[in-house]
Amino acid sequence: KIKTSLTEEEIAKLPRVKQKMVPPPFAPAHDHIAEGGPKVVEVTLVIEEMPWTISDEAETIALTFNGSVPGPLIVVHEGDYVELTMVNPETNAMEHNIDFHSSTGALGGGGLTHVLPGETTVLRWKATKPGAFVYHCAPGGSMIPYHVIKGMNGAVVVLPRNGITDGRGKPLTYDKMYFIGEQDFYVPKDNEGNYKKYEDAGEDFDDVMEVARKLIPTHEVFNGKVGALTGEGALKSKVGESVLFVHAQANRDCRPHLIGGHWNYSWEFGSFDDIPGRGHETALVRGGSAGTFLYTFEQPGVYAYVNHNLIEATELGAVAHVIVEGEWNDDLMKQIKKGDSA
Amino acid sequence: KIKTSLTEEEIAKLPRVKQKMVPPPFAPAHDHIAEGGPKVVEVTLVIEEMPWTISDEAETIALTFNGSVPGPLIVVHEGDYVELTMVNPETNAMEHNIDFHSSTGALGGGGLTHVLPGETTVLRWKATKPGAFVYHCAPGGSMIPYHVIKGMNGAVVVLPRNGITDGRGKPLTYDKMYFIGEQDFYVPKDNEGNYKKYEDAGEDFDDVMEVARKLIPTHEVFNGKVGALTGEGALKSKVGESVLFVHAQANRDCRPHLIGGHWNYSWEFGSFDDIPGRGHETALVRGGSAGTFLYTFEQPGVYAYVNHNLIEATELGAVAHVIVEGEWNDDLMKQIKKGDSA
Amino acid sequence: KIKTSLTEEEIAKLPRVKQKMVPPPFAPAHDHIAEGGPKVVEVTLVIEEMPWTISDEAETIALTFNGSVPGPLIVVHEGDYVELTMVNPETNAMEHNIDFHSSTGALGGGGLTHVLPGETTVLRWKATKPGAFVYHCAPGGSMIPYHVIKGMNGAVVVLPRNGITDGRGKPLTYDKMYFIGEQDFYVPKDNEGNYKKYEDAGEDFDDVMEVARKLIPTHEVFNGKVGALTGEGALKSKVGESVLFVHAQANRDCRPHLIGGHWNYSWEFGSFDDIPGRGHETALVRGGSAGTFLYTFEQPGVYAYVNHNLIEATELGAVAHVIVEGEWNDDLMKQIKKGDSA
Ligand SMILES: [Cu+2]
Ligand SMILES: [Cu+2]
Ligand SMILES: [Cu+2]
Ligand SMILES: [Cu+2]
Ligand SMILES: [Cu+2]
Ligand SMILES: [Cu+2]
Ligand SMILES: [Mg+2]
Ligand SMILES: [Mg+2]
Ligand SMILES: [Mg+2]
Ligand SMILES: [Mg+2]
Ligand SMILES: [Mg+2]
Ligand SMILES: [Mg+2]
Ligand SMILES: [Mg+2]
Ligand SMILES: [Mg+2]
Ligand SMILES: [Mg+2]
Repeated sequence: KIKTSLTEEEIAKLPRVKQKMVPPPFAPAHDHIAEGGPKVVEVTLVIEEMPWTISDEAETIALTFNGSVPGPLIVVHEGDYVELTMVNPETNAMEHNIDFHSSTGALGGGGLTHVLPGETTVLRWKATKPGAFVYHCAPGGSMIPYHVIKGMNGAVVVLPRNGITDGRGKPLTYDKMYFIGEQDFYVPKDNEGNYKKYEDAGEDFDDVMEVARKLIPTHEVFNGKVGALTGEGALKSKVGESVLFVHAQANRDCRPHLIGGHWNYSWEFGSFDDIPGRGHETALVRGGSAGTFLYTFEQPGVYAYVNHNLIEATELGAVAHVIVEGEWNDDLMKQIKKGDSA
Repeated sequence: KIKTSLTEEEIAKLPRVKQKMVPPPFAPAHDHIAEGGPKVVEVTLVIEEMPWTISDEAETIALTFNGSVPGPLIVVHEGDYVELTMVNPETNAMEHNIDFHSSTGALGGGGLTHVLPGETTVLRWKATKPGAFVYHCAPGGSMIPYHVIKGMNGAVVVLPRNGITDGRGKPLTYDKMYFIGEQDFYVPKDNEGNYKKYEDAGEDFDDVMEVARKLIPTHEVFNGKVGALTGEGALKSKVGESVLFVHAQANRDCRPHLIGGHWNYSWEFGSFDDIPGRGHETALVRGGSAGTFLYTFEQPGVYAYVNHNLIEATELGAVAHVIVEGEWNDDLMKQIKKGDSA
Repeated sequence: KIKTSLTEEEIAKLPRVKQKMVPPPFAPAHDHIAEGGPKVVEVTLVIEEMPWTISDEAETIALTFNGSVPGPLIVVHEGDYVELTMVNPETNAMEHNIDFHSSTGALGGGGLTHVLPGETTVLRWKATKPGAFVYHCAPGGSMIPYHVIKGMNGAVVVLPRNGITDGRGKPLTYDKMYFIGEQDFYVPKDNEGNYKKYEDAGEDFDDVMEVARKLIPTHEVFNGKVGALTGEGALKSKVGESVLFVHAQANRDCRPHLIGGHWNYSWEFGSFDDIPGRGHETALVRGGSAGTFLYTFEQPGVYAYVNHNLIEATELGAVAHVIVEGEWNDDLMKQIKKGDSA
């Protein structure tokens, strides 16, 4: 455990690295096992209030970190210091801040990072617990859920310095990390049942909160849009490859399931201090958390990655695809007779 | 772990056994500890689209495997091969298929088992992970939730070859296995608030999906009907008997609780590779999964087995009874004074 | 494990202690590690049907144990006998009983404790499983959810005789125990959208159950009221202090999260026979259960303790505050630059 407290002088001498942020479902380049001691990892988030297409029928003014829903994944190691620079450009209309579930104190940083349009803030926090954690805007009162359900959330992965294990002494590894952010939207409808459109950020506040208060979303999507992770946006893997999926939902319970696959190792809470579950069919990610799920693909083909409330999957939008290349293994599954009338 | 890949020739030489399917809440006859090596276990599912009474007020055209909701429980051992023959009789109206969460690849077999009315398919898959898993129809798009919420789901138990354990080195056993399938129905209502009736399979598709999209079921039942597992249908046990409950819900989270009892060992995910929880009052079965719960009865009487959202239990239908014979133990509980005004 | 069965004569010779009940969020005075052998712990619950303010807009006739929502926390040790005296005063209008999830048999005592107004009952049960468990009224049929969602529920903590551990051999301890009961209310509205008021206990039964059947509460609160645990009612702690939070929800899933903190040790099911999770951001307490969560505060300030469905938190009422005194630690978090336009 990282219990050692460093002085300002000691922190000032640590190596500094700038994390190059990438949009989800990708993870930033990183080492699985840390090289050397703790670092100060610099990350920058620019808040963008922007028109956003949720589906063919619905659009909104999304509130985003770096223009994606969810915001970018941050990856550091236990003991590292994250130094966040957060910019609220003058072109924005609203006040924002950020709460890191991975940090300690001051409402997760929420109390120290309020920025009005045109303002910039810098916060440093130490990653003391290994796991995947949500971050989100939380400016206060009803604005907390409003900003979160308008897209303003993301995740941090804090890796153990020596990498992840099976919790029983065996080191584990992964070839690839994907970040799936699941988002619930509550889009108001007009009297004809069509989704309403609004011009300005915050204009839909009353209407959205009225829908939200009934707790049933109109959309439940991956990467901010119906179909964002299918077709051109589909994830890729191959037989024999191990993928660590980071699945975050900042507000609402969801249940990641890989159709045709499993979770070899499942950290439902994302905590790498837990003993992971094994061979799970479907996980639960609690509203306001991020989990991690490791799978080594054994068969080629198209996998559907869904929220296994199947209504939420096909009707509300929670479907992604993983396209897996490789050779089929008849030992695992074989079509003995194709459906026919013979 | 069963990692060894067999060739077609080797599989062809394995012993073959036919599993005699029985309707839920019963489990097919099986050995707890496997005798000998891997087998090919033949199972047959016949799809039946049929009129179905959900409650005194509501009926539907159910889509079923073998005429029950849920479909029959399949029990095999890790390393066994399941050879499924699935028949879609010509008298049916719809296309179906099957996705086994316990299998690997091709959408859990869903991509290899499409059958039109009049067709038959045969699929073989290897049971590589020990645990309880859901199976369900998943013909594509909105038809996936539709077929599942019309009853077309069931479960497979893959036992470890050497039987189940407490995850800490102690072998466990059970005297009886019961299969509780929990089903959410979304029955449309007419303008007077009465449940609508439909003549043909699929006729209610638009109406059902409109109700379903709001995510709140009209019914949440065990074994397909309000009261299916009470009265004549009540489960039976006796003091000192250990019962392994397999609880599946293919779509929606639920929370099995035994009123007056506990879960001595709880595998919420059904995975026998997990360390089971101990002494749990209430479990969560994630939508799209099956869990297993072991309890040794200590007192006689009628136990209510419920989904402990108590509104879902008494108002939506998720109540079963377990009638337990034996001798009362005053040490555990004693009525010192019956309620009276003295 | 406490398997030894005592005779009536042996139980009669055990020491008897009377537990002084205190209202939530407080826990009764108790030893963490048991002194001596099993005891008979006498507790008294008086049922009060009483006018209750849920929020500025909503009131109800609550059904309560001892006049609080939830009822008082009971704390005993494994192997102790709880001897409950339950009084239903003549001034009440309804029949009640009690189901202890921590007990064994007779519907958790529900079958042995029915009391009409003017009646008193006495029930003894043995605490055989270590953990936190819900108790609640369960008079039968639709009255079960009705009484529970009108406030009639509480919790019992059964401590291991030697105290709690990390499940890996390390003893744990706590300086303070807080009891957070989360309550879902379903308050009917009139045609203008205002919450309806009723004069007598039970008068709102039909209306409440009609709202409840749709499964979406109008309020989700801690300690029975919006704001009960903020302001004057805020919880208190200090840096370095370890607090064991007992979180119960008798009917509906919820997700306790401490903004700015974590769960160092999380027993989601409350079972002290489980290996606790570590470093969790957000937990799930299943409807019909109580969990326990240990946190040692590291930073001073105001922490918001919420249900991290943030809509349920700010809109439905599930927010508490913990005011923590002590010295700020810059190593954990430091505001490098306050939000400004420089
Ligand atoms: Cu914001
Ligand atoms: Cu949060
Ligand atoms: Cu089908
Ligand atoms: Cu599935
Ligand atoms: Cu009552
Ligand atoms: Cu209960
Ligand atoms: Mg599958
Ligand atoms: Mg997490
Ligand atoms: Mg065909
Ligand atoms: Mg009970
Ligand atoms: Mg399972
Ligand atoms: Mg009486
Ligand atoms: Mg936080
Ligand atoms: Mg509990
Ligand atoms: Mg400012």
